[in-house]
Formats: sequence, structure tokens, C-alpha cells
Amino acid sequence: MGGGECLGPVFLCILNWPLELDSRISCLCCSLEVPQGRPVWGLNSLPALSGLLVSLEGLGHFQPVDSTLPLSPKGAGKGGGGREGFLVPRFDPRLDLLLAAAFVSDAQYSRNVPFETSPQAIRLYYFYNHWTMRVATYFFIWVDLSLALFEEPALFPLPFLATSIAEVLCLAAFFGRLMHFAKVTSQMVFWKDSKNICIMVTIVLTLIDLIIYGSLEAVNIRSVRWSRALRPIFLINFPESRQIRRALRSLRNTLPDILYVFLLFMFSVLIFSLMALKLFGDRGLKTAEGSPYFENILEIAFELYVLVTTANSPDVMMPAYDFNWWYSLYFITYIIINTYIFMSVFLAVVYSNYRKHLKNEIRKLAYLKRHKMMEAFNILKVKVGTEFVVEEAQWRRLAQMVAPDMSSAHLELLLRISDEGQKGHVDKMNFLRLADLLNIQVVTINIKRHPLETWVPRVYQSSTSLLVQKMVRHRIFVWVFDVIILINAIFIALDEKNPFISYAEWLFLSLYVIEILLKLYTYEPRAYFERKQFWNWFDTLIIIAALVATVANATIQSASKYNSQQILDIVLILRILRLLRVIISIQRFRIIVTTLINIGPTMLTFGGLVFVVYYAFAIIGMGVFHGKVQFFDPNSTAPDATVCGSPALRGSAFARGRYCKNNFNDLASSFIVLMELTVVNQWHVIADGFALVTHQAAKLYFILFHIVVVILIVNIFIAFVLEAFFVAYSLEKGEVETAIERKIQELGVGIQEEEVQDGKLTDPVDAKDGGFRGDDRDNKRKALKGLYCRIASKKYRTVDTLLQRMFESEIDPEEEGSSLDEILNFSPSDIYPKNPSFENSV
Amino acid sequence: MGGGECLGPVFLCILNWPLELDSRISCLCCSLEVPQGRPVWGLNSLPALSGLLVSLEGLGHFQPVDSTLPLSPKGAGKGGGGREGFLVPRFDPRLDLLLAAAFVSDAQYSRNVPFETSPQAIRLYYFYNHWTMRVATYFFIWVDLSLALFEEPALFPLPFLATSIAEVLCLAAFFGRLMHFAKVTSQMVFWKDSKNICIMVTIVLTLIDLIIYGSLEAVNIRSVRWSRALRPIFLINFPESRQIRRALRSLRNTLPDILYVFLLFMFSVLIFSLMALKLFGDRGLKTAEGSPYFENILEIAFELYVLVTTANSPDVMMPAYDFNWWYSLYFITYIIINTYIFMSVFLAVVYSNYRKHLKNEIRKLAYLKRHKMMEAFNILKVKVGTEFVVEEAQWRRLAQMVAPDMSSAHLELLLRISDEGQKGHVDKMNFLRLADLLNIQVVTINIKRHPLETWVPRVYQSSTSLLVQKMVRHRIFVWVFDVIILINAIFIALDEKNPFISYAEWLFLSLYVIEILLKLYTYEPRAYFERKQFWNWFDTLIIIAALVATVANATIQSASKYNSQQILDIVLILRILRLLRVIISIQRFRIIVTTLINIGPTMLTFGGLVFVVYYAFAIIGMGVFHGKVQFFDPNSTAPDATVCGSPALRGSAFARGRYCKNNFNDLASSFIVLMELTVVNQWHVIADGFALVTHQAAKLYFILFHIVVVILIVNIFIAFVLEAFFVAYSLEKGEVETAIERKIQELGVGIQEEEVQDGKLTDPVDAKDGGFRGDDRDNKRKALKGLYCRIASKKYRTVDTLLQRMFESEIDPEEEGSSLDEILNFSPSDIYPKNPSFENSV
Repeated sequence: MGGGECLGPVFLCILNWPLELDSRISCLCCSLEVPQGRPVWGLNSLPALSGLLVSLEGLGHFQPVDSTLPLSPKGAGKGGGGREGFLVPRFDPRLDLLLAAAFVSDAQYSRNVPFETSPQAIRLYYFYNHWTMRVATYFFIWVDLSLALFEEPALFPLPFLATSIAEVLCLAAFFGRLMHFAKVTSQMVFWKDSKNICIMVTIVLTLIDLIIYGSLEAVNIRSVRWSRALRPIFLINFPESRQIRRALRSLRNTLPDILYVFLLFMFSVLIFSLMALKLFGDRGLKTAEGSPYFENILEIAFELYVLVTTANSPDVMMPAYDFNWWYSLYFITYIIINTYIFMSVFLAVVYSNYRKHLKNEIRKLAYLKRHKMMEAFNILKVKVGTEFVVEEAQWRRLAQMVAPDMSSAHLELLLRISDEGQKGHVDKMNFLRLADLLNIQVVTINIKRHPLETWVPRVYQSSTSLLVQKMVRHRIFVWVFDVIILINAIFIALDEKNPFISYAEWLFLSLYVIEILLKLYTYEPRAYFERKQFWNWFDTLIIIAALVATVANATIQSASKYNSQQILDIVLILRILRLLRVIISIQRFRIIVTTLINIGPTMLTFGGLVFVVYYAFAIIGMGVFHGKVQFFDPNSTAPDATVCGSPALRGSAFARGRYCKNNFNDLASSFIVLMELTVVNQWHVIADGFALVTHQAAKLYFILFHIVVVILIVNIFIAFVLEAFFVAYSLEKGEVETAIERKIQELGVGIQEEEVQDGKLTDPVDAKDGGFRGDDRDNKRKALKGLYCRIASKKYRTVDTLLQRMFESEIDPEEEGSSLDEILNFSPSDIYPKNPSFENSV
Repeated sequence: MGGGECLGPVFLCILNWPLELDSRISCLCCSLEVPQGRPVWGLNSLPALSGLLVSLEGLGHFQPVDSTLPLSPKGAGKGGGGREGFLVPRFDPRLDLLLAAAFVSDAQYSRNVPFETSPQAIRLYYFYNHWTMRVATYFFIWVDLSLALFEEPALFPLPFLATSIAEVLCLAAFFGRLMHFAKVTSQMVFWKDSKNICIMVTIVLTLIDLIIYGSLEAVNIRSVRWSRALRPIFLINFPESRQIRRALRSLRNTLPDILYVFLLFMFSVLIFSLMALKLFGDRGLKTAEGSPYFENILEIAFELYVLVTTANSPDVMMPAYDFNWWYSLYFITYIIINTYIFMSVFLAVVYSNYRKHLKNEIRKLAYLKRHKMMEAFNILKVKVGTEFVVEEAQWRRLAQMVAPDMSSAHLELLLRISDEGQKGHVDKMNFLRLADLLNIQVVTINIKRHPLETWVPRVYQSSTSLLVQKMVRHRIFVWVFDVIILINAIFIALDEKNPFISYAEWLFLSLYVIEILLKLYTYEPRAYFERKQFWNWFDTLIIIAALVATVANATIQSASKYNSQQILDIVLILRILRLLRVIISIQRFRIIVTTLINIGPTMLTFGGLVFVVYYAFAIIGMGVFHGKVQFFDPNSTAPDATVCGSPALRGSAFARGRYCKNNFNDLASSFIVLMELTVVNQWHVIADGFALVTHQAAKLYFILFHIVVVILIVNIFIAFVLEAFFVAYSLEKGEVETAIERKIQELGVGIQEEEVQDGKLTDPVDAKDGGFRGDDRDNKRKALKGLYCRIASKKYRTVDTLLQRMFESEIDPEEEGSSLDEILNFSPSDIYPKNPSFENSV
């Protein structure tokens, strides 16, 4: 079995760019024409996969899947340690296993819940982590948040009674979840955690607000539902939203450092305002709109703050510049100091804090993981000879309990890696790696030969058929379709009123369909639509959607002579999205796009953070500005239609720019206004407009939003993209990956990199991550006889995993680990003294 | 002399934040009351400092300063190596010394000129590096560049003959400099260097252009002086502008990487344009100005490109958003993808390339320095025992030749550090450090007791006087003046028409003058105005300038009843700048400002880079857009005054915004327009305006400018600020500094950090760099008896020096160094294989 050749199923590990944060190996197991292959790694001797809760039966809460422990015959024969007889289910070892599995699972998913170890608490903890409970929590959070759509000012109005009942239900659910958590963990831990206190206070406040509002409503007094702005707290503070919380924490950590820079920046703005007042205040200059120029210190300060965001450049300068050439120097100095230098310093402060705290957090995670694995090891260890180890059978049960969906082949591979000498037990160092091993996902798919080859071998192997296959595999085939896409683009750009062009549309569509059919004819369909074949999926889905939409549109059009606007829009968009297929055939483009898709999930964290801030600001904005600005239909004959229903706006830039629809009259509109404020340009026009219909102090709302979202969050987003990008440049192989790879090589199932890099894979660095392509597989099918497996070398490209690995290598494997308290109190400055050299040393 | 106490002059090394890139120690040598102090380190036995070219006499070119070699008696007695008798000036050792000094000097200033080693070439090389030659070169470069002010379209018109003669003179000077360089270096090196070729081609092209333009002018045909756009090449390509060239090189190196991202970005813009055309093209929507909305694919592409820069958000969205709520999603998607993600990726690509190439360049510099020092060592080495060394006398002559302005005490200190065992010779490793030691600048100033103490000791030491001194040193004194400044700020903000307030102005001014006089009374004036006391200088200069301007203004006002606008403006500005003094008393503010001042000089590199690009674009812009847009005085009655003299602009946003003065009619106006384009906002209005008066293709000029300046240069600037900021976070002491410090400690002249951090120096990290303050010095004067010297621990805070140090530690001291060719061909990728770990590892 350790030899160089194997007649069993062929494991062909194809390198896929990881589409998700956690890394994984996709293994395609191709059964070639080896009819009586000896099963590898005892595949046949393993029982079928047992369910998730296999060992929970008897402990309640879950339906037992299988009442006997899944035990391989091999493992059963070797229980030589300090414990005996696993076959008879006894309470104690089971509970131990359950506890250990909880620890391993926590380590695997980087959870940090200091749960109690009593049987009761462990069972509750399993239930607490069960996916149904998490989904339910999220469901209630989203229901609670979406209530803003139905409450006054509503997009879809519902009576107060309905929304308040829904809200109380949500609050009850949150309280229940919290109580569940309180049962899992110790009282002290529970009350020390500010998250829990925060949720409870919010629940109480919301209830008070509901009662006050309800009773006032009952006597027909309208008040404000202020507690709605607190709703995002539920989204942030439940343990499931670790990513958002981390982003928010790095925001909070940045504040002290940024405060002084901000004060100095404000001081500079004020000094410049004073100067502007003295220089321009008495000149009697007029702006382009004819209003007085720079005559009031507060207005000047606001205008200059707007200039920092560049939104009123160069208009704010023009009157002074027209008056005298030299005054432009004042504005240039201002822009260089405040816009360029201070804004860069803000980014630098945010970025360096982000990095510093990110590293600290990841270090905490690494130490916590080690801590949990140590706990698990200490529970399961038995003494063999001089050292403590974990029995192979025990290990196997543990792994299956933690990852019940794992294929048995995968389990065997992990066991081989962990129990290197095949001694029947796993030593401490290898045991500690289990969480990482489990995180490396192995996707096993059996690729058989092409179905047509099985069904009609003669036709499929005929010379015409082979010619077609060869043709499709040729790169000219790709080029031809690139050219077709380009011609298609030109046709789209041309006027489609011309009937010839609308016929051409059908031609292009059918060409694309033929292309996909040809590819499916040539490549094995299940391999073509393998889970990780992002580009194939993308390609096919776009074409099918375009086909369906076009046909639907044509049907409706011919049936009712009526053009459905929605369907037509969708058809148009899909028609153009098809052009994106050209990205597939340009290697460099594909790499950039896959990189972006790769960091996409983490970007969503920022989406969450932005959502939280938007929601709070939108609720406040709706409270303050609701109904002040109204949008009238362009054909409306209302007298104030051109000034958004508010005479105060007459002559303002807000009305002139027809910004009436930028209002806070419902949640969706508010979000769009906030989006526009995030983009910054013209934000002062919007701020001015709302200040005119309310009070000048309303500008503070917009300035605050700018500081929070643009200066802080957008900078953290940029910091994140920068960091993610740098990590993509570093190429280190992880320790765990290397171990797996070594094992694979030892087992004689390795393939050399050179073999992979044939065909058009010429780029030395990125080609092997370029995704699965048919011609490679084809070469492989001819070239390989035996068992092959290989690990992608650059799976671990995310900041988190990479940093985590680094900190892990810092921990001595023999070390028992710091205590939990120590770990939780790590501070960023602890990192530096250990390694004081320049952090970017090359 | 090596003992713990010394009665000689007290060296008090005060820590100063380095104001320039190269680090230095400022040593204040205070002679305290030790009347017959034994001279330290043979200060008296050394001859007076000999001039720069002391050993050049007899070799021509320079006036001999002193015909005997400066030779300390000690050094003369110990010539025990392989060479004998230095006292008789012979040709060979002198030339050797000269050559070695040239190498050391090159290493010190990181010059990289592969000069010939023939006596003739070395002398020419000294002349080439002489400051007069460099100043002359820069003078001609600036004359050449400033010609654009005098040529048509001119700010100050001069006849063509005058400017062309000036230009030919400049070209002759450039050619002469180039020929000089050709004589210094070997033919092969000269012709292989693209800089030289580039300069020569530019000279020839300029001459051709001049001749063509001149002859056409003679027959009254106007043509274009196109070669003027090439003038910045001289600024870039002369070896003196190393920094600008490096920034430009990192720009060029970034291009290949950024190209694909840019293409993908353009592809995305085009896809979205097509989509917009199909979605909105046939709707018959109108913009706020009533023009058709999204009906032409080219216009859409331009509008969407503008949207990436956010300059037309949200106006571009409003018509579609007014039409249907859902269309806002199209724009939000567009902004997220193109503005946020792509722009961040651009920054990331630019930044990572900047870092990569910066490191490579610095590595080259480090290796080159080592290489030069090896050359120098090999020239001067003599064999003592088993190892090669440099005689102390020889070393001393070399150091004096390289740094003729160095004080003898400083030289002795360096010798002590280099010749640790006082063996009379300097070994190889210590010799190689010479260039670094020379770069650590020691400023020696004799601080005597306060002059008043000498002149009128009784009065100065009287109890009233001591009370005043104590008062001034107290921190309440600082607070009182902070409060006065704040009151002053309020008075400035108030209306100054009130006579009471204008009298108050004189009160404040006299209070500030009194403050400075009191400080000068308390602190030793020469210490107070020491070279590095940036804040004291700032304070005093502001007050003196304000005093002079106010008095001048009052005089003019009372004499002629006429308010000079210029003087009044200056008075106003100075009055407000005085408020900046409040920064001095807030520790955190002072740190931020000094950090910014610290990286200021390098920021000027970007100023140079921006100037080069601006100049080229301004010349092209003046050629294309000159006279198309005209500015009329607001009171002008010209018919087209409101449309900038061009009917094509009627109804355009350009005319509406009164942008007429944003034109390309002279160099200064062009620069201001380009500045506005750099700030980005409203750039599309300017681009549209110039497209209206010329052709739509003119927009390409503005798009190109945006890509070059905003996407590339501004991003490199941000990258630089980020990097500089991170370096400020790292605290490593340099190897050389440590050596000096060790020596100082050994010599018993060290002071502990704690002693320094008394008084209000409480910030543990940055306080000691906070600059010299009187109260510290005062404590010191009381506390210290003996010789004290200390090195600032964080002098080496610039990216360059820090990185250079890191690479130096990578070079084996015994290594002869890579060959010159190898060094020059280092590529960034060479760095990584040596040390493949994650570059940000902590």
C-alpha cells in the first residue's frame, strides 16, 4: 500500500483556487479501467458514514443514527493502552469523547465559548452549536432588522400592533438564546462578558420603548421609536457574528490613536478658517450662485471641511482666484496639508492599527486553538510506553464525531498522516494538528469515463467524434469563441431596431449553446460541473439564463404584443453579462477575478459592518428628516414639485440638482442617500438641503456620518484589501499542508508539478491554480496509472490562515499553552518585544 | 582618558528629532567651570582643520590650502605596516588616499558613479562632485524650465531671440556637464547608461526644434515649440536627482503589473456602459440640465469613468433613480466594483510594487556601499601581523579628506570607535563602517553659561532674577501663554473694526515678545537657537515677522492713510499663524507635526515627480488649449464674458460654474488647472469645457492626466506615507549607533535614559525625541560633572536608512562583495528566495 503503484481508484487531486476562506483540497477520484482494483486504505472495510450525532444517542436531544460505535476492525484489535473494551458503550468514555469532540470542533471553527464540562452543559452546548439554532437566531435577527421596512415611515406599512408583536417575539427569541448560553457557560463567565450584558440591556430598553410608544399611541400622541437604532446590536453581539465584531473592534482600537490626529486636523481646519475669514471676509466677493463668499466663520469651517473631502473643489476657490491669482496658493496649501497629508495619515493610522490588532487577534485564536486541542488530548490520552498518545480507534471515533460528513477515504488519509509509523496510536504533536487537518477539505468525486463512451462506445470513439473532441480541446476553439464574443459585443452596441441584428442575437445565442454542448460532449459532464469549476458554472448559467429569458421575452412579445419591461431588462443584462466569458480565456484576467472572488467573503464582513452603521444612521435620519423632502412625479402639477415640496429649498443646489428623491422617507431611500454620502461627492449639497429644511445643526449628522464611514470604515476596508493583496504575494507552504503532501508522496500517490504544468499551463506561479481544464485532465488520463493525489500549494492565501500558521509555529509543541485568561488578555504590544526587528524585513 | 570622569569640555549630546533624512547626533559641547581641564582626545595636539582639497595641491585644479599633510604626532610615530614614511609627500600614497577618499565619499553619499581610477579621472571626478558644479547644473536646469514663463504663451513675455539664446546656453551647459562625466567614467560605461543617451537625444531634439521654429518664425509662420515638453528630462536624468528618478522608476516598474488590472477595469467600464446604453438609452430620460441621458456609448463610457472618480455622483444616477427605484442598484453595483474594489486594487498593486522595488533599490545601495568601502580598504590596507589593516594616521587623513568640516573632537571619537583596542590601526570590519560613522553627524557647539551671568553675575543671580527664571521654567508659564493664545484666537475671530480689539492686537503682540525675551533671559541664547531647535526658531520667527509686518503696516497706514493690501494680508496671516504656537505645548500634537516635518524632505521627492509631470502636461496643454478659454474681469462688458469668450460654452457647466480662469493661457494658470484636476472633483466639468471649445477627443488629455497623476502618482504618495509611518513604529537600534553608544559608555561619558526623561518628558516612546527644552538642559547642568555623550535611539527612522541597515547585516563582513555588475542587476525577485517567509511576520 505504501508502494509506488496502485490499481485502485485513482485519486486525482486537482488544484482549485479556493473559492472560500477555509482552504480545501478537491480530490477527484477517477475510477479508471481497473476492474478488480484492490481497495485502497481499507475503503471497503470501513462502515458506511455514520451521522453527525452518532454518539449522542442515549444522551437525549438527538435522534440516534446508529447505535453502535463506528469502529474499524483494525482499530478494534489494537486497544493496547490504559483503557480497555470500547465495544461496550459505557457512560464515561462516551462523555469523554463527546467533550473532546466539542473541544476539537471549537478549535476547528475557532469558536471561543468557555462552556462548562458537566454532561448536562456539554449536551446543551452541542445543541447550542447546532445549525438549526444558529439559523433560527439569524432568522430572528433579520426579522427584527427588517421590521424597519414595515414601521412608520414604512416602505410597506403594517399596523403598529403587528410590528410590535413581531418585535416582542424576536426579543423573546434573543432572550431564549441568551438563557441557553447562560446554561452552557459558568455564571461568572456569563456575567463578565460585556456582549451578554449589552444584549440584555438592549432587550430591556427596547421593551421600555415599545411600552411607552404603545401607550402614547393609544392616546394618539406620536412619539419616536428611538430604540430601533439599537437593533444592529443584536447582529453584532451574538457570538455568531465574530467577523463583524472583529472589524468593529479594530475600529474601536483605532480610535485613541486617530483622535489626536483628528484634533490636530480640526485645529488646522480652524486656523485656515480664521485665515479665510480675515483674507476674504471683507472683500464682498460672491460665489457663482451670487451668495456671499466666506463671511461667517461657521460656514467657512463647513466649506473647508467639505474641501477636505474635495467635494466642492474648485468651486470654493473660484471667487478668490478670480479676484487675485495669489489667493489660489491659500487653497493649494490647504489641500496639500489637509486633503493629501492628513487623509494619508488617517489611512496610515487606521492601517497600522488594523494590522497590529489583526495580528493580536489571530495570535489569540492560534493560542486558543492550541489550548482547546490540548484539553481534548488530555481527555483522551492513554499511556503507551513512555509517552501519552491517543488510540487509533479513539481518534477515528473522535474525527467522525467532529466531521461526520467526511468520506472514509479522507478519514483514512488523515489517519495515515497523524499516525505516521502506523503504530496504532496518534502521538500528541500529531493529535494537536487534527483541527487543521479537518479544515483542509477533501472533495471526492468519482469521475468515470464519459457517459457516451459507456453507452455508445463505437460512435464516441469513431474518427469523426475523436476529431470533434480534438477540435474542442484545441486552443483555436477558445479563440474562435473569443472572436464571436467580440463580434457579439459590437452587435449589442449597434442599434437593435434593425431586424438583421435582432436575428443575429438568436444566432449568437445558439452558437453559445452549441459551444457548451460540444464541451459537454468532449469533457466528462460531472467533472465539467464539479463543485469548484466556478468558470464553467458561470458560463453555463449565464447562457441558460439568457436563453430562458430571451425565449420568455419572445413568447410574451409574440403572444401579447406587449414588451414586459422587467423581462426585457433582464434579457438585456444577461446578453451583456455573456461578454464576461471573454475573461475566462485571458489568463491574467482570470487570476485577478478569482483573487477578488477569493477575498469576497471577507469583504462581506465589511458589508456587515457598513450595514450596521447604515441601519443606525438610517433610523436616526428617518426620525429627524422624515417627510421634510418629498419626491414628486416629473409630471406632477403640485406647486412645490420643483423644490421637493419645501419652499425653503428654492434656489438651492439641492433643488437645482433635482435631488428630491434623495430623502429619508423610508428605509430603502435612506440607504441610498447614505450610499451617496459614502461616495462623498456632492454630500455637502445633500447636507445643505436637509439643513435648509430643518436647521443648520443638521449638518452635524452628515459630518458625523462622513467621519465614521469614510474616514474610519472605508479606510479599514482599504487596509483590508491591501493586507489581503500582500498575502497573495507570499508563497509559503503551510506546515500542515506540507505534512499531508509528504504523506501523499510517501504513499506513492504524488504527481510531480511538471506533469501538471503541461498544456497551456505556462505561467510558473499561478497556472496551477487556474482551475480545472479539460485538456489537462485528458493528458492525465493517458499519463497516469496508479493512485495520485496532490495538494494545492497556495490554498492558504487568506490573511487569517497565514497569520494563524505563523503564530502556531511560535508555540512550542510540548508547551501546555498559556492559561485561558492569559490568552484572552494578550495585547498587541506583547507581540513586538518578542521579535523587535523591522517587521517588513526581507 | 578611558576612565569614568573627565574634566575637559562636557559633551552633552542632546537628542534631536532628525530634521533631515540622514541621521545625525547633535552634540552640544558645554564647557563648564573647569578652568584648566586636560584636553580630551588630544584636541590640542591636532592641527587646525585643513581644507577640503588639502591633498590635491600638486595635482592641479585646486588651490593648495596647506602643503604639509595634516598628520597627528601620534599617527606619525606608528607607521609600522608595509609602507613607510608619510612625511615626505610622494605621488603614490597621495593618489591612493585621494582615490580611497573618493570611494568613501561615494559610499557616504550613496553615489554610484563608476569613475576611472587614472589620476586625471580622479581629479576630474573630484571637480565633478564639487558643490559649485552641482549648483551650476541645477541653476541651468531651473533656468531652462522657467523659460516657459517667458515664452509664448507667456506670463512675462520676452522676445523669441532672448529665450532661444538662454535655452542654447542651457543646452551648452548640459552638454558640458555630460562631457565632463564622459571624461570621468569609461567610454563603455558612459554609452551603456541610458541617462546619458537620453540627455543627448533631448539636446539634439531641442536644437532641431529651435532651428525649425526659428526659421519658420523668420518667415512669419507660427509653429509649435514641441520640444519644451521634453525639458523635465534634464531634471530627471542628471545624476543629482536620484530621488526623483527612483520615484519615477518605481512608477515605471509598477506599470506592467497595473496594466492588466487596468485593462480589466476598462473592460468592466465598457460592459457597464453597454448595459447602461441598453437599459437607459431608449427611455428618453433627461438630465437635470435637460440634455439627453445615456444615449451615446462614448458619452456613457466617459460618464461612467467620471463616476469611478466619484466626481459626478450622484447626479449621473438621479434621472434613472427618479424613473425607477431599482435602477439605483445598477449604480451601486458599479460603484462598489469599480470605485471601491478596483481603486483599492490599484493602490494595493502600486503599494506592493513600491515596497518590492524600494527594497531592491536599497539593497543595491547597501551592496554598492560595501563594494566602495572594500575598494577603499584594499587601496589603503597594510599588513599588520596576520591581518590587513589601515594605519591610524592614514585613516585620520582619509577621514579629514572626506569630511574636512568635521571637528577634531568628533574625528577623535570616530577613531576611538573604529580603533577599539587603541592598537594604532583600524581593522577591516571597522573600516567598512566609516561611511556610516561619517553620516552620523555631530554638531558641536560650546555652551557657556548665560552671557548675562558672565557680564552682570550679581544681577543675574539675584533673588528676583532667580525667581523670574524659576517662573519661566515652570509649566504654568506655558499654560498661561496657551490661554493667552486662545483668547487671542477669539479676538481674531471677532470683528476687528472695533478699536478696542485693534488695540488688543498690540497687547497680544507685546505679550508674545515679552515671552520670548523672558525665555532668552532664562535659557542660554545660543542653546535656545541651536540649529535643531525647530520649535524655538518657529516661535521666534513668527513673532518677529508679525511684529515687523504690523509695525510696517501701521507706519504705512498712518503715513499715507493707505492700506497696502499685500502687507495687510501678510499681517493677517502671521497673526493667525501665531496660534500654531499652541501646538508646541501639547506633546502629542508636537510629535505628529515633527513626524510630518521629518518625512517632509522625502515628500518633496514627490513634489519633484509631480512637477515633472505637471510641466510636461502644462506645455502640451498650452499648445492645445491656449487662448480657447478666456478670463474677463467681472465688470467687463465684453459680449462673451459670461461664456469665457467662447460661444461654444453657452449653457455648459463650465460657464455656469464661472470656470473661465481655469485655462491654459500661461504656465501658472495651467499648473492651477492641473492641480484642480489632481484634486479630481469637477474635473469632468473642466474636461467637458475644453472639449466643447476644441473637440471631444480633448477629453483624452484629461483622462490620461487622471490615470497618470491620480491612479499612479497619488497612490505612490499614499504608499510612501504608509511605509514611512510603519517605519516610525519600528524601534530597532542600528548596528552602527549601537557601536558608538557602546564606545560612549565605555569611555564613561554615557548618561542613562532615565536622567534624560525627567521633567515633563513622560511619554515613554517619543519624549526623548521631542526636541531640546530649556528645563531639561537646566537639570543637566546641575546634574552632570564630566564628559557626557549619548546617541538618539531613534534617529534612523526613515525607510531608506532602516532598510539599508537591514541589508547591510545580510552582507558577510568578510565577503569581498558581489561584483559591480551583479549588484546593478539585482532584481526584486532575488530578495524573496533567500527568505521566503511571510514578509510581515511578527
